Amino acid sequence: MTYCVAMRLRNGLAFAADTRTNAGVDNIATFRKVWTLERTGERVLVLLSAGNLAISQAVISELEEDIKVADDARSSLMTVTSMFHAARLVGEAIRKVRHIDGPALEASGGFATSMILGGQIGTEEPRLFQLYAEGNFIEATEDTPYLQIGEHKYGKPILDRIADTDMRLGDAATLMLLSFDSTLRSNLSVGMPIDLVLYRGDTLSLTLERRIDQNDPYFLALSEAWSTALRDVFGHLDPFDMAGAERPPEAPSKGSSVR
Amino acid sequence: MTYCVAMRLRNGLAFAADTRTNAGVDNIATFRKVWTLERTGERVLVLLSAGNLAISQAVISELEEDIKVADDARSSLMTVTSMFHAARLVGEAIRKVRHIDGPALEASGGFATSMILGGQIGTEEPRLFQLYAEGNFIEATEDTPYLQIGEHKYGKPILDRIADTDMRLGDAATLMLLSFDSTLRSNLSVGMPIDLVLYRGDTLSLTLERRIDQNDPYFLALSEAWSTALRDVFGHLDPFDMAGAERPPEAPSKGSSVR
Repeated sequence: MTYCVAMRLRNGLAFAADTRTNAGVDNIATFRKVWTLERTGERVLVLLSAGNLAISQAVISELEEDIKVADDARSSLMTVTSMFHAARLVGEAIRKVRHIDGPALEASGGFATSMILGGQIGTEEPRLFQLYAEGNFIEATEDTPYLQIGEHKYGKPILDRIADTDMRLGDAATLMLLSFDSTLRSNLSVGMPIDLVLYRGDTLSLTLERRIDQNDPYFLALSEAWSTALRDVFGHLDPFDMAGAERPPEAPSKGSSVR
Repeated sequence: MTYCVAMRLRNGLAFAADTRTNAGVDNIATFRKVWTLERTGERVLVLLSAGNLAISQAVISELEEDIKVADDARSSLMTVTSMFHAARLVGEAIRKVRHIDGPALEASGGFATSMILGGQIGTEEPRLFQLYAEGNFIEATEDTPYLQIGEHKYGKPILDRIADTDMRLGDAATLMLLSFDSTLRSNLSVGMPIDLVLYRGDTLSLTLERRIDQNDPYFLALSEAWSTALRDVFGHLDPFDMAGAERPPEAPSKGSSVR
């Protein structure tokens, strides 16, 4: 499995992806799921992938082939003039791979892939998209500042509580790492290291790329501080009212049920 | 969908279940998913169910039939002398319903059900089991003080951080409500009210049964206090180190990727 999350902020984009791929818990490997494309001053694109690794790699290879052979007749991620068209190209690459590998995969679990594409091209504002196995896609708006793919449920509550379009880029990094911390604690199929990519809007150059492994001092301190603070907060919550709890069995409470 | 959670504590058992059933988001209804059985001074049993409501209700009807007709030749939840045998009976009821309805259901999504059974019979210690659609089951141990069925992922991280066998019964109730709060915020298919059942060990009588609806003052205050505290804690975490973030594109950082 995989967990990837990305945020569309007023002042930029933030991306994080784990690096675990597994075919059963006894067959685990580390693969980078973040693919970045950059021509400083002109365009920055970041692609995160979840699902079948063979599919993700085939899609990226298709996109790279297009970049190599691109001419006036055929556009590529290096030539398109908007993020919308970039998303279209990634969707087309997914459909091309599906056309080739889909039938064989349908026999065994189906064609499973999902991707997040974010970036900025020229004077257009930074944009963030989520692509489906069908090759179609949605775009993140101010209402939903984040997108997730893969094993997303464990890390969603913290995002729902704190994610905000106005966050600073560094705070978004912290939030995404906490979302990962929750996921890592609860699910074996998501594993360190985490690849983190930050992009400050209108710089047209990647702001930060960092691989955070299990020994990363900031992540360790963050994880510990968060857990400790949560337990501390929990300890100070108003206690549940057990008053009138002892009900005579002859007089079942309103919530009582079939006997 | 459904979310149910139960805890096995040193001093008792705690149960919570939502009440939403839905066939698509446009067809939502409220059904109690907690079934309690009690003979004060002798036995207390609590059954939580997730999955296909028709299956859950059929299983419970089977168990009630057995109670009505039980004789020396045929045991029921009211006559078994251990929670292990009680779990066996529930498993047998699941298999009986599967034998009847399974084939028809396999055609449309399969036979989906899971249950949590907890309680205490006579002098045996309180025990907690999770039953599968196959009718087999596992028991909660000190290592895993809680069991979940249904839409369990959103509410798991908070349990993993705080759940503890030595918790007081009231604190377990608070923790389970927070686990529900996280789930409710992130998933439409789980809905209020929440049915809460607490059992203090060796009392052989249900300690508390309460239905908590969306206007419950304690739940509202708890939810608000928790969210506020989390945002406050987040605001006081050490900021992510953006130092050296501005890397020259000519010198990609270690985490850099295919270009």
